[in-house]
Amino acid sequence: MIQRPRGTRDFGPDEMETRRYLEGLMRLQAGTFGFREISTPIFEYAKLFTIKSGPNILEEMYAFKDKGGRDITLRPELTAPVMRFFVNELTDVPRPLKVFYIGPCFRYERPQSGRFREFYQFGAELIGAQNPESDAEVIALAASIMEKAGLKDYRIRIGHIGILRKKLKDAGVAPEMVPSILQKLDKKLFDEARSIMEQAEMSDGSIDEVVGITNIAGPVSVLDDFEGESKDYLQGVARILDASRVKNPQIDLGVIRGLDYYTGIVFEIDVPKLGAEKQVCGGGSYSLSELFGGETVFSTGFAIGFDRTILALEKEGFKAPRRAVEAYVIPVSEGMREKALGITSMLRAKGIAADVDLMRRNLAKNLKYANSIKARKAIIVGEKELETQSVVVRDMETGEQRAVKIDDLADFFVKCGGNGV
Amino acid sequence: MIQRPRGTRDFGPDEMETRRYLEGLMRLQAGTFGFREISTPIFEYAKLFTIKSGPNILEEMYAFKDKGGRDITLRPELTAPVMRFFVNELTDVPRPLKVFYIGPCFRYERPQSGRFREFYQFGAELIGAQNPESDAEVIALAASIMEKAGLKDYRIRIGHIGILRKKLKDAGVAPEMVPSILQKLDKKLFDEARSIMEQAEMSDGSIDEVVGITNIAGPVSVLDDFEGESKDYLQGVARILDASRVKNPQIDLGVIRGLDYYTGIVFEIDVPKLGAEKQVCGGGSYSLSELFGGETVFSTGFAIGFDRTILALEKEGFKAPRRAVEAYVIPVSEGMREKALGITSMLRAKGIAADVDLMRRNLAKNLKYANSIKARKAIIVGEKELETQSVVVRDMETGEQRAVKIDDLADFFVKCGGNGV
Repeated sequence: MIQRPRGTRDFGPDEMETRRYLEGLMRLQAGTFGFREISTPIFEYAKLFTIKSGPNILEEMYAFKDKGGRDITLRPELTAPVMRFFVNELTDVPRPLKVFYIGPCFRYERPQSGRFREFYQFGAELIGAQNPESDAEVIALAASIMEKAGLKDYRIRIGHIGILRKKLKDAGVAPEMVPSILQKLDKKLFDEARSIMEQAEMSDGSIDEVVGITNIAGPVSVLDDFEGESKDYLQGVARILDASRVKNPQIDLGVIRGLDYYTGIVFEIDVPKLGAEKQVCGGGSYSLSELFGGETVFSTGFAIGFDRTILALEKEGFKAPRRAVEAYVIPVSEGMREKALGITSMLRAKGIAADVDLMRRNLAKNLKYANSIKARKAIIVGEKELETQSVVVRDMETGEQRAVKIDDLADFFVKCGGNGV
Repeated sequence: MIQRPRGTRDFGPDEMETRRYLEGLMRLQAGTFGFREISTPIFEYAKLFTIKSGPNILEEMYAFKDKGGRDITLRPELTAPVMRFFVNELTDVPRPLKVFYIGPCFRYERPQSGRFREFYQFGAELIGAQNPESDAEVIALAASIMEKAGLKDYRIRIGHIGILRKKLKDAGVAPEMVPSILQKLDKKLFDEARSIMEQAEMSDGSIDEVVGITNIAGPVSVLDDFEGESKDYLQGVARILDASRVKNPQIDLGVIRGLDYYTGIVFEIDVPKLGAEKQVCGGGSYSLSELFGGETVFSTGFAIGFDRTILALEKEGFKAPRRAVEAYVIPVSEGMREKALGITSMLRAKGIAADVDLMRRNLAKNLKYANSIKARKAIIVGEKELETQSVVVRDMETGEQRAVKIDDLADFFVKCGGNGV
């Protein structure tokens, strides 16, 4: 047997129905917010991601040389490709440009629970605006997707990376030391963060202040005693979210997001019951286009971990609606075969999901198969009923049977709610 | 600027709306036929494809070594991954197992018109049946997708590879020479095919007969004068397709499909107006599972070139339905901003696609932006109307304006047909 590569998955019909349902719901919701879908290639030049995230990311990527010797990589995320697309082709589109995407991304790491080498992301980017309402718009979309999906227990935590950046700058920290300090703070490694801040010759008071800021978390009122230029901005975002009926957004100035290009608002959505892998969404406002050769354009975006969101929903007992086979058509004898195929085809032409015996089985075995594919009804095509242009319709759940005229069959199924269109 | 890799594409919002529409239609139609979706990884062990198609396929694939030294490749097609999935995990599922898939595939070749290094395939496999009705089922699904998509000018050509295989066997051709003969006949390279058949010590009469068979093409009646054991089978398939209202399927015994694992029926769908790249679908009945370590299981399947199908539809003037922004909400002054955001949020909560000024523009510029995103209506939120809990709704096409109570807004848009749910 040939196995599939480690850290990848095959999805069977039930899983795919759930995934496509959630994907459709995200797409619909993004459209309701005026975002439109775009798509970029599965692989990119590796440079695109090393420019954005530094050369270390090469170790975590599926990077390879193509037959022309070019450094190619399977995409590890989708913000960089979207901004490349924007810089190369979409700068003339009226702004803000509101786009979303969904698709597989790849990282080379040890496969473990809830983390796969091939994983799926849904994300949105609002390109070309920078104010509390554009940031709130993006957070509200992320939240509304969780709501529409029916997720009950999630937390939205909103911070502002500009606050820490300004404190570090005011304390005289050299710009090249800022990223490593923020990375340690992001991971709550306070001792290591302190030691770098000491190397950067910050005063003990400033260091305490920086660490203190990362611990400010709670309802919007935690900002009341906080002084800083981004306070009004954060409060503005929170006020709009409240007016937009976003449920209980929390302030958390410890939300840092480890990457250099975030400039202002940063936010995360957690699902506590997922444990260590609880973060299902992360985002913020950023400026990336200039790294890819464009002008500076401020944007706000997020990515939702599609797989983890499904995991979270399933832990809450979520079941996606299923499209059932409405009718499984069974010829009782060889002579009825073409009639059965004709009836199946007639039902399908009306958009009714129908299947038919393709194995030349007897009635009992056909009923067993109909049961296994969870068909709602069986249509039994027999000589006797055909004399009156009828067939027997059997309810697969109750076993109840009744004769129905072939001419009335389509209407019968539409009335049962079985119209697939 | 960082370019995207050669032979790949970015898809903007209009293109994606067309692609997702067609994808949705294919998914719906496959479901109507009782097929269910599955999904496999973007990359596989290279072995999976060399076992199926021979080592030459390595030259045409994006093959690389992962960091563990394993030979990996971006999938060039999806039948082999689906059969791997079947052999490894789905052999206990009641048969026939009816599955479909859609997604990107990859081949390393010179990019040219209509051929991309990253391209999309939709396909279906009916696993575990082998008779005229199961073959007809698969052909009927492919045809019904073309019909539902609204494609007007396409040709279905059906052959049977068993006919030529038997002729060659009866003429004493060694099994290892059969593939190269069929490959030449597939490409209509008759001189080369003849020369190999001569090497295989076939008589001139047998050679003429084989070449003659590949020229038998036309309506089902061309089989009337043909003698061969697969004649009844082909006629049976044609009769079922006729009963299933498949439009004008043609017989073409020259349809060969260059691959070893086809065993019986083979078929192609062409769109003549696409010229040299006219084939939009190819398929047939095959046996692959034993190559991947499973038992022999007969299947029938096809793959549709998604990109070419869109190209064909667009050449016929096809336009996918668009989901418009129903309402673009404009605050006339700073004081109206939160009210405008609240109205937007209220409309969205009812499933109405709504957008709002996020750039703090003046009315004229906002109307220009509303126009650029093709919003159907603008909602102008001004102090004066707000005194009576009203807003001005402006039809973006006619310029007509009217006052609407905020409480009546959602109903107003639903009545306009603007309910996005």
